[in-house]
Amino acid sequence: MTTDPKALVFDAYGTLFDVHSVTRLADSLFPGRGPALSQAWRTKQLEYTWLRSLMGRYDDFNAVTADALDWALESLGLAAEPEARASLIRAYRTLAMFPEVRGALERLGGQRALAILSNGHPDMLDAVVDHNELRVFFGERVLSVHEAGVFKPDPRVYAIVTAQLGLPAEAVGFVSSNGWDAAGAKSFGFRAFWVNRGKAPVERLGSPPDAVVEDLAGLARLLAG
Amino acid sequence: MTTDPKALVFDAYGTLFDVHSVTRLADSLFPGRGPALSQAWRTKQLEYTWLRSLMGRYDDFNAVTADALDWALESLGLAAEPEARASLIRAYRTLAMFPEVRGALERLGGQRALAILSNGHPDMLDAVVDHNELRVFFGERVLSVHEAGVFKPDPRVYAIVTAQLGLPAEAVGFVSSNGWDAAGAKSFGFRAFWVNRGKAPVERLGSPPDAVVEDLAGLARLLAG
Repeated sequence: MTTDPKALVFDAYGTLFDVHSVTRLADSLFPGRGPALSQAWRTKQLEYTWLRSLMGRYDDFNAVTADALDWALESLGLAAEPEARASLIRAYRTLAMFPEVRGALERLGGQRALAILSNGHPDMLDAVVDHNELRVFFGERVLSVHEAGVFKPDPRVYAIVTAQLGLPAEAVGFVSSNGWDAAGAKSFGFRAFWVNRGKAPVERLGSPPDAVVEDLAGLARLLAG
Repeated sequence: MTTDPKALVFDAYGTLFDVHSVTRLADSLFPGRGPALSQAWRTKQLEYTWLRSLMGRYDDFNAVTADALDWALESLGLAAEPEARASLIRAYRTLAMFPEVRGALERLGGQRALAILSNGHPDMLDAVVDHNELRVFFGERVLSVHEAGVFKPDPRVYAIVTAQLGLPAEAVGFVSSNGWDAAGAKSFGFRAFWVNRGKAPVERLGSPPDAVVEDLAGLARLLAG
């Protein structure tokens, strides 16, 4: 890094918040099937964001998340009572954050603005940020794709950041555990930090990240020195 | 069906041709790992078509297929010699067709025009169509997304069909084993026939297919009576 980014923008689901923290609830509803349900649900949820964006048929992340759950349940041969289904969808509002998040944000803030850019509907994002008591770090800079009417990695989504923060793309560091999101951010012009929590291969999408860290503590060591 | 479609347009990979016919070659190169490699490769190949389309970074299907193979090999901890890698990529030009394809096309043609619309690069499509001796059914109506510079399910791709065949969308029946492709076609305005080879749940994308069949013989029974 030649110069320090003026703002750090974080992906939410998978980066700050553990989408698989729904596994315990899923496993209590469907004993032994929790991990498979959580995995199938998340995979389909992402697919639907990409497909609806390409089809020009945006629907908000609440709806996409519910649709993906219904598909995942059926694919696994599971039938959920309405209350069980509702409890799984509600769980997205109280996802746990990863254990190092608070300490890393404390080290990374102060010198620079911190923000979130997420596929989540604004209501879902506000709920999970407040549940984890992270508002102090982000203030009003909790940005949703919803106003663009399309999901990541469409460049119109990343443009919300430059418009809202009033910064050129090259002054923004974008942090995501989703390799494809880091690639989309890099392609847009941000500096991309990939949090490779799953020790996955780098995505071959033509725009590799500027740096790879294993978690947000690693990002704090890299940037906060 | 109130009226019979004037043209039937088929997806290629997974619908006419079995993408998992590369499994045997993959298994001979990496004993015991062929099925896992074939699965990871195909999943990532589709992801990359969606992601590159959304990012506005189209690259042709040869390149995407090679990139996805490299990712899949690394994710499974497999190292391929250059010749082994090249042989896997070449295998996409000689994929086997599903066993019922020829008989179904014989029954479905004659009364209506048959065409292909595929993510494949024109060179790849011509190769696999000729390898399976299906040219007699499709003639020059082997259409590629390549001219649109974007992959399915972007509506600009389906518009290639209406432009090339000179038909309104509602006169076209679109046939795909990929549920998301059937949904994209239906959203565009085609009549959508989903060939549910994998007995999967219907995709929740807001545009369910007009009919579901288990294979192309089932489609022939439905339409050729």
